[in-house]
Amino acid sequence: MNGTTINTPPNTPFVEVTREFAATPARLYRVMSDPDLLAQWLGPRNLEAEIEEYDVRPGGKYRYIHRDDSGEYGFRGVFHTVEPERMIIQTFEWEGAPGEVCIEKMTLEPTEDGVRLRQRSVFPSIEARDQSIQYGMTDGINDSMDRLAELVAKEA
Amino acid sequence: MNGTTINTPPNTPFVEVTREFAATPARLYRVMSDPDLLAQWLGPRNLEAEIEEYDVRPGGKYRYIHRDDSGEYGFRGVFHTVEPERMIIQTFEWEGAPGEVCIEKMTLEPTEDGVRLRQRSVFPSIEARDQSIQYGMTDGINDSMDRLAELVAKEA
Repeated sequence: MNGTTINTPPNTPFVEVTREFAATPARLYRVMSDPDLLAQWLGPRNLEAEIEEYDVRPGGKYRYIHRDDSGEYGFRGVFHTVEPERMIIQTFEWEGAPGEVCIEKMTLEPTEDGVRLRQRSVFPSIEARDQSIQYGMTDGINDSMDRLAELVAKEA
Repeated sequence: MNGTTINTPPNTPFVEVTREFAATPARLYRVMSDPDLLAQWLGPRNLEAEIEEYDVRPGGKYRYIHRDDSGEYGFRGVFHTVEPERMIIQTFEWEGAPGEVCIEKMTLEPTEDGVRLRQRSVFPSIEARDQSIQYGMTDGINDSMDRLAELVAKEA
């Protein structure tokens, strides 16, 4: 499975992800926003995810933890826009770099065969984005998108 | 009064503002975060500001309206980080361009003579930032910062 496009234009703070899924926007949205399902696809395969809070509404907060043998990594943010089955705009902060906050926009568009997910992350600086790439961000995104596609197929 | 530095590096989505005030961080923070005082300095001098909501806590929302003879302009966002007298990180959306959401970080640092305010806005694209500059953003920032300095002096 290799249908994820990740675009990281040089000298910018942007990360653009596109992936198509064989599902309706409604089904994809449910698997993306239900905390119990989220824990099953979010992040690299070698990490376990625990969703501590996931309150999907404008002003709602989220926090989750990724764990492996070497430690744990906390992530948090707030939702700015929530339009179910269509668009989510949220902040994103890795607790290991406090104060370095991204803004992320996720949209779902129906296609002939299913649904297209687009995600655009804007980092607070070019350096912060490049460092995140060095830490393996693109591997994490590829794993997440593949796991999401598997779960969407299973939940059909 | 002309102490505001506004840096808009070309081909980036960033706007960096720096201004020093003859006040303690506590006093500046109060004038910046009290909705009644906020309405007295936020925005260009030729617009009237109405603060509809301003709930300064993580996950809290804000909305304000700027009005002049030709119409009104709504702005909204949510607070991600609130560390009183030190740092605020928030989202920012002009309702005229829905879905185009900035992330803004504001920090206060004590100096020998007062306090230094730094604000860094990150737009969702380079085009969105450049368009905002064309619409007069830098004039609005200069007016806001001058009005804030005047109010801080008055509230001393």
